[in-house]
Amino acid sequence: MCELLGMECNVPTDIVFSFSGLALRGGVRGPHADGWGLALYEGRAVRTFLEPAAAANSKLAAYIRSHPIKTLLAIAHVRKRTRGPVSLANTHPFVRELWGRNFTFAHNGTVRGVKRHALGRFHPVGTTDSEYAFCTILNRLVRLFPGGYPDDRARLYRAVAKIGGELGENGTFNFLLGDGEQLFARCATKLSYIVRKAPFRKATLADDDLTVDFSEVTTPRDRVAVIATAPLTRDESWTIGRPGEMWVFRRGQLAATLKS
Amino acid sequence: MCELLGMECNVPTDIVFSFSGLALRGGVRGPHADGWGLALYEGRAVRTFLEPAAAANSKLAAYIRSHPIKTLLAIAHVRKRTRGPVSLANTHPFVRELWGRNFTFAHNGTVRGVKRHALGRFHPVGTTDSEYAFCTILNRLVRLFPGGYPDDRARLYRAVAKIGGELGENGTFNFLLGDGEQLFARCATKLSYIVRKAPFRKATLADDDLTVDFSEVTTPRDRVAVIATAPLTRDESWTIGRPGEMWVFRRGQLAATLKS
Repeated sequence: MCELLGMECNVPTDIVFSFSGLALRGGVRGPHADGWGLALYEGRAVRTFLEPAAAANSKLAAYIRSHPIKTLLAIAHVRKRTRGPVSLANTHPFVRELWGRNFTFAHNGTVRGVKRHALGRFHPVGTTDSEYAFCTILNRLVRLFPGGYPDDRARLYRAVAKIGGELGENGTFNFLLGDGEQLFARCATKLSYIVRKAPFRKATLADDDLTVDFSEVTTPRDRVAVIATAPLTRDESWTIGRPGEMWVFRRGQLAATLKS
Repeated sequence: MCELLGMECNVPTDIVFSFSGLALRGGVRGPHADGWGLALYEGRAVRTFLEPAAAANSKLAAYIRSHPIKTLLAIAHVRKRTRGPVSLANTHPFVRELWGRNFTFAHNGTVRGVKRHALGRFHPVGTTDSEYAFCTILNRLVRLFPGGYPDDRARLYRAVAKIGGELGENGTFNFLLGDGEQLFARCATKLSYIVRKAPFRKATLADDDLTVDFSEVTTPRDRVAVIATAPLTRDESWTIGRPGEMWVFRRGQLAATLKS
């Protein structure tokens, strides 16, 4: 099993506080020492930092924490290997270009039998069930929307939820999927979120004594949705996902909740 | 115009010495201050470091120089903007997955009229002629090889050379293209290479006083091909490309030279 972290905002925000909490679970407080990755969007483009090694001891992760990059949409992952060896190719998040935008995907769980699905345009580079499932989602979207990115976003939301539900029938399919405008977050067994907005308060990491007073680093207009496998702070009220629920975050708020 | 740097080896090698020379041209010694990127392969997967800012002053570039990652295949780029604004989406190298492997591309020059080519599977995320040309190469490869990555590598080499020549008819199309096994290097106006092998010697950067004695960091079996817009060292014998020539490097040696 792995740990997921997502952030989706209406103003550029750095993910350092939450990423610090996640990184601690990647080898120090948690067993997720087999790799970590961070994807940071700028518009429809994304940059990734990937390392097939524990985040907690990583000098690259430390560099990122000390040189924060602001973004509207981020996805991070720390990996505890279940399927596929430890390698760069098997390190989440995975990225593909579709319709002139980068899609980014990270998964927690194991999806049995996913490799029965015939591939299409997108093929995995590594050997994980996770990347195969991501390719399957995109291959299905290509067939469902031959005209490209749908104008009607609700159709896209329903399609992602439906595909997620089908792939999740045989396994544990908690995932985060970003497309540069939305963050899709599916709960199979374990996922939680919080939307921070005015009035901002202090928050303390659950795994450390690090505290941030968000009122000092925000404006009243700011909204920041944070999604994580388990609540990252001990003094805030997180919403816990129900199995089969998929949230869509857009512009720092929950835009839709679907059954999947 | 921009500067290109590629490295293709038969044993994992770090690119720090050459990248140091390139980074100097990104804002200190050269005018290429509009971004830089570095792609490092591990098998068929690639990790990229991208920054839409000058390499010479970059803390991330400094981090990479002080924490080298060994690789068999690397592509780097420093950008002087000609077309398209300074943004992450317009920062080379560009990456796409095709046939279960990452293709990586960086371009020096301007390709006029490239946007007349109809797109197919691959679409640009940014607005550069370079990324559009990369997508056009891949869209053509998809049509030429419907069965996937060709068993006959020479067919792939000829296809890339032919497409490169056609796109290069209307402009300056110096490029580096990697697929995890080969590095394709096309010279339109300016490109040079060297293959370092035993007996290894000292080399000194053309833009700095930095010297490395490669005999201290290599074994007699090692072969390292380095390709750059202009020779990076002042005391080695680089081969200068002829217009329309495309080199293919594989396992640290020149595997083919094609007209394109």
